[in-house]
Amino acid sequence: MKVAIVGASGAVGQEFLNILENRDFPMDELVLFGSARSAGRKYNFRGKELVVKELQHNDDFKDIDIALTSAGGGTSKEFEKTITKHGTIMIDNSSAFRLDDDVPLVVPEVNAADCANRPRNVIANPNCTTIQMVVALKAIEDISHIRRVHVSTYQAASGAGATGMDELENQFKQIVNGEKPDVEKFTHQLAMNIIPHVDVFTDNGYTKEEMKMFNETRKIMHSDVQVSAMCVRIPIMRAHSESIWVETERPVSVEEATEAFSKAEGIKVIDNPDKNEYPMPLFLSGEDEVFVGRIRADLANPNGLTFWAVADQIRKGAALNAVQIAEYMVKEGMVK
Amino acid sequence: MKVAIVGASGAVGQEFLNILENRDFPMDELVLFGSARSAGRKYNFRGKELVVKELQHNDDFKDIDIALTSAGGGTSKEFEKTITKHGTIMIDNSSAFRLDDDVPLVVPEVNAADCANRPRNVIANPNCTTIQMVVALKAIEDISHIRRVHVSTYQAASGAGATGMDELENQFKQIVNGEKPDVEKFTHQLAMNIIPHVDVFTDNGYTKEEMKMFNETRKIMHSDVQVSAMCVRIPIMRAHSESIWVETERPVSVEEATEAFSKAEGIKVIDNPDKNEYPMPLFLSGEDEVFVGRIRADLANPNGLTFWAVADQIRKGAALNAVQIAEYMVKEGMVK
Repeated sequence: MKVAIVGASGAVGQEFLNILENRDFPMDELVLFGSARSAGRKYNFRGKELVVKELQHNDDFKDIDIALTSAGGGTSKEFEKTITKHGTIMIDNSSAFRLDDDVPLVVPEVNAADCANRPRNVIANPNCTTIQMVVALKAIEDISHIRRVHVSTYQAASGAGATGMDELENQFKQIVNGEKPDVEKFTHQLAMNIIPHVDVFTDNGYTKEEMKMFNETRKIMHSDVQVSAMCVRIPIMRAHSESIWVETERPVSVEEATEAFSKAEGIKVIDNPDKNEYPMPLFLSGEDEVFVGRIRADLANPNGLTFWAVADQIRKGAALNAVQIAEYMVKEGMVK
Repeated sequence: MKVAIVGASGAVGQEFLNILENRDFPMDELVLFGSARSAGRKYNFRGKELVVKELQHNDDFKDIDIALTSAGGGTSKEFEKTITKHGTIMIDNSSAFRLDDDVPLVVPEVNAADCANRPRNVIANPNCTTIQMVVALKAIEDISHIRRVHVSTYQAASGAGATGMDELENQFKQIVNGEKPDVEKFTHQLAMNIIPHVDVFTDNGYTKEEMKMFNETRKIMHSDVQVSAMCVRIPIMRAHSESIWVETERPVSVEEATEAFSKAEGIKVIDNPDKNEYPMPLFLSGEDEVFVGRIRADLANPNGLTFWAVADQIRKGAALNAVQIAEYMVKEGMVK
């Protein structure tokens, strides 16, 4: 089993290395690819030094079984054929193919079986905000169909990659030292501020990030659910939080929901208000699960339920979900 | 006209001083009161030095026309009679009396006329998160009755007073200097984190802060509106933000809503996505209005509308609203 990471030097690429190092993934060899700029960089993996190769239009993927790609939508589109032409399965973290009809969009806890139908040998990894939400929604959907979702996000700097995290950290240093913070990666200063704008705006006034939560959720869940999202960037390093309301076909009680969340794959419930215990991003960075808390009845809807979900954006929101897709496909014998 | 500030050394008390200094409030004398601890402190006001007097059970309020009180609910309850017994109007910023039937709860843009009926001579100032929301809701309510509201808040450290702001600022310094941040005022570390918990929890799983948004909104708007709120503390200094969904009796278009917000008293619309212009707390601290942007249709409800509202928590969310109540009462001849 040969695995490749494309975009090895990015925040998600680095997390692929961490996760493959620490999980018992059945793999004989790992190959790293990156841009001309990052080619030549060296990383330790399972006691060996790996050197990043430049991603080029050649036959480098000939013996690769699975390529985990996270180098931006443009690169994914440009290199899809190069990567898949010899039968390599491409698990792509970009937004390039997510809504293509012939590309499954997969969160293993929700729709792993969709991996079977992949005419282009490409599987898309959903957007971070969608992944953590659908893991939680699935637990409720199994009890009663979800008709509507309203969600406000609290998204960390990590969603903008390593440069986003560096910019935020640098801004804090500059502010504490009495300097004017540099603003480059984000549209406005993020430290001491929040920005109600993630990704670009679309014609209906929603951002692409917000429309991903609408469209990707429907595709992953095979559902007509309607999602209205408000995506907000906040000044923390990593792990996204979401304030979620769902309207179900029949009322679902808090007890029923809590039990469903507790039993669901990939979810941990932290919901002890009397002990001041609820999911918080600072303490859940680096964790694999989606953490759910503040579960309560929706006071504005008899068929409504509301809760709070936190997950590490780089792990379950990106790299880990892609690796879990690969693990599922290996287990099911879908890898040649 | 003699005005008193009770709790003069607190964050809201200090903002009372700022606002009265800069607004054309018709006042002959200002008297400052505080706890035994802050008695003796001196503040400049309109070129004079004022000394904080200790709040005591005596006749100090005999000649005071209006007392602006912000010294916590316990102090307000303890001193209500002392303050009002000679006819002083008490405009109270604490949560002590807000839901009392014989105390009007007032946001001047919404229900100023309620000031007329005040058997105890006490007027309550609503909670900060409620004030900025109802100013925005009023503009929509005037077009079509609002049945339901879903709201997620992004609340600054200022909501916990001057000590809250100091703690956050200190945590940032400690983190940048590689030290472990001190945690005292907030339940958990706030810098680099968010805390889905403001005020104490109640039996239904909501916090008191969240229930204030339910109960106070109904009282101020004389409405049966149902509000489900999620209140979250975030690591910024001042100005609260809110992601709001409303369901109206008949559909209200984005154009109609934008026009209503633009014409409404106390609101400024900032909604130019193509120029990356929308309300952000960093740039609106110290401002008087409620700023509304990101106005769009609710994709999950044909009768729904969603928007983003930002206001300075210490100004419109507290001190300014109380002063505006006083101004209205003076203008209407309600002050003896």
